Amino acid sequence: MNADGSTPWRSAEDRDAERQSKREAVLTTAVRFFNARGFHATNLDDVARRLKVTKPTIYHYFSSKEEILFECVRRGLAAIRDVAETAQAAGGRGADRLEALMREYALVMTRDFGMCVSRTPDAQLGPESRRKFRALKRDIHAILQGVIADGMADGSLRPGNPLLAANTVAGALNWVAIWYDPKGRMSPEDIADGMVATLMSGLKDTTP
Amino acid sequence: MNADGSTPWRSAEDRDAERQSKREAVLTTAVRFFNARGFHATNLDDVARRLKVTKPTIYHYFSSKEEILFECVRRGLAAIRDVAETAQAAGGRGADRLEALMREYALVMTRDFGMCVSRTPDAQLGPESRRKFRALKRDIHAILQGVIADGMADGSLRPGNPLLAANTVAGALNWVAIWYDPKGRMSPEDIADGMVATLMSGLKDTTP
Repeated sequence: MNADGSTPWRSAEDRDAERQSKREAVLTTAVRFFNARGFHATNLDDVARRLKVTKPTIYHYFSSKEEILFECVRRGLAAIRDVAETAQAAGGRGADRLEALMREYALVMTRDFGMCVSRTPDAQLGPESRRKFRALKRDIHAILQGVIADGMADGSLRPGNPLLAANTVAGALNWVAIWYDPKGRMSPEDIADGMVATLMSGLKDTTP
Repeated sequence: MNADGSTPWRSAEDRDAERQSKREAVLTTAVRFFNARGFHATNLDDVARRLKVTKPTIYHYFSSKEEILFECVRRGLAAIRDVAETAQAAGGRGADRLEALMREYALVMTRDFGMCVSRTPDAQLGPESRRKFRALKRDIHAILQGVIADGMADGSLRPGNPLLAANTVAGALNWVAIWYDPKGRMSPEDIADGMVATLMSGLKDTTP
């Protein structure tokens, strides 16, 4: 024991926290390569080099490049589901909940893991992950469609086809991940505000 | 020569037409595999089997699987550019030209080659094709943004940011290719009409 009561050996919690933070560093580094180059062109050697470690070190935390990709997509989808569930649970009219949902969803799509969801084609996921992610995507879509249906029912949105409206909204939002450029002139907030304003007018407008 | 003046030998034009129609059959068969399974999981053996030919026969018409994919994406993009140019050249207010453009664009995205554009991530294209396709995509985007800017200038659309409006519209339309299901309940026309109505209201609406 040192004079101050500390020990040079780390506690189990410290080691666990360190492991978590290293795992996290692999994910946040790899996701940027996936987003910039695509899964197939991403090389774990490059990820390791960026982290100043060797490739075997990465295999300490993940069994394969696929596993890293799946975890990136899973996180992105979990973030979208979180904003959808939060908006769904909020009180108020359908239109207000939809507006909050779309705004937060747009913001997620400008962040690395959200971006990875749109930039990863289904075909790049193994059969098991694909099944799992499709279920998550269905959940998100069901919430979005439900909030729109609520708005159509409570009169805060123009009556229409909730499925088609949900697809229109999801397309505009998911596409943000494809064109958003962090070095571009529009901030994530500008994008979210402008897009939400256009889509909300489109769904509320009651003129023929 | 036969009694009716015909000959059992085919003319150069006939042979050329036959070559074209066989090349076409390879493309229209392959694009469905790409759309359903993705590029990497598509096997030219399966394409050949579907066409009841051998794989070397396919290499008569295309040098590689990549070349087939590029031609599919090129056709899809050419179809979108065609509808954009037609709408751009039509007379009338910006809003009317935009409406026509969006409607035809949505329809293209329900067809095989249009679908292939959205389902093929940039990273799957070689550097040269990627450059060529990015140029085509920029052309299309410039036309779309220009028509929207015209509408904002002539008062047929609400004033706003034409770039953000174009991205919102492009996202909703491009996403059709991801979720459209030919066996689903909505016809391409239903989708185009419903989506265009929502987006047009969103871009025209002048209430605060």
